[in-house]
Amino acid sequence: MADSKNSNPRLRVLMGSAIAIGPGKADLVDAIHRTGSISGAAREMGMSYRRAWLLVEAMNRSFIDPLIEASTGGRGGGGARVTDHGHAILKRYRDMESKAAASVEPEMKEFAALLAPDFTSDFPDD
Amino acid sequence: MADSKNSNPRLRVLMGSAIAIGPGKADLVDAIHRTGSISGAAREMGMSYRRAWLLVEAMNRSFIDPLIEASTGGRGGGGARVTDHGHAILKRYRDMESKAAASVEPEMKEFAALLAPDFTSDFPDD
Repeated sequence: MADSKNSNPRLRVLMGSAIAIGPGKADLVDAIHRTGSISGAAREMGMSYRRAWLLVEAMNRSFIDPLIEASTGGRGGGGARVTDHGHAILKRYRDMESKAAASVEPEMKEFAALLAPDFTSDFPDD
Repeated sequence: MADSKNSNPRLRVLMGSAIAIGPGKADLVDAIHRTGSISGAAREMGMSYRRAWLLVEAMNRSFIDPLIEASTGGRGGGGARVTDHGHAILKRYRDMESKAAASVEPEMKEFAALLAPDFTSDFPDD
């Protein structure tokens, strides 16, 4: 059983094959909201500024309106804010995530019993 | 509208930061079952043999019993089969996915209307 770990199995919900928004992007939007900039969010999430910027670009192009507005200010220098549209998208996403996760809660409990208790990986690919 | 896209939710089961099973690994198990080998599955999925092998290794170590049994046969030469345990895990995973998808079907329809109609991404990171 996996109860001895602080890392109980978690379920993440990915929406779509071309992933317009997923766990990582949603967390990035939250971090931009918290820190007020893409660079601050990148730092908080331990990713490069370039990667965060690319994720923001991809996200903005995925939806009918941008989720993030960045003010130009030189290399990593400008601020960024989450638009009303971005907040609305994020809320819808989080709501779907919770509902989907709740719908399979009993199954996840059973599934957790099949996981090796001491598994760790530095190859966190899907 | 994004109706032409597969926008069904997909699930990832994480243990800590490690992904025990997710969309890519599940598809890999299917491909191994179809092709009878890790190399065949890798080819079908357009990934390197090494990458497929690492994913299989990680998966096998994530669960209490291995999902894939490979017979050694030189570099990429041996066959591989999905164990009964592997089939059972995959079925549980797919069932959870279907149930989660059904639970947010109305919300997903609304969400799809917010996606840019021409969105495609070659940066399908989450």
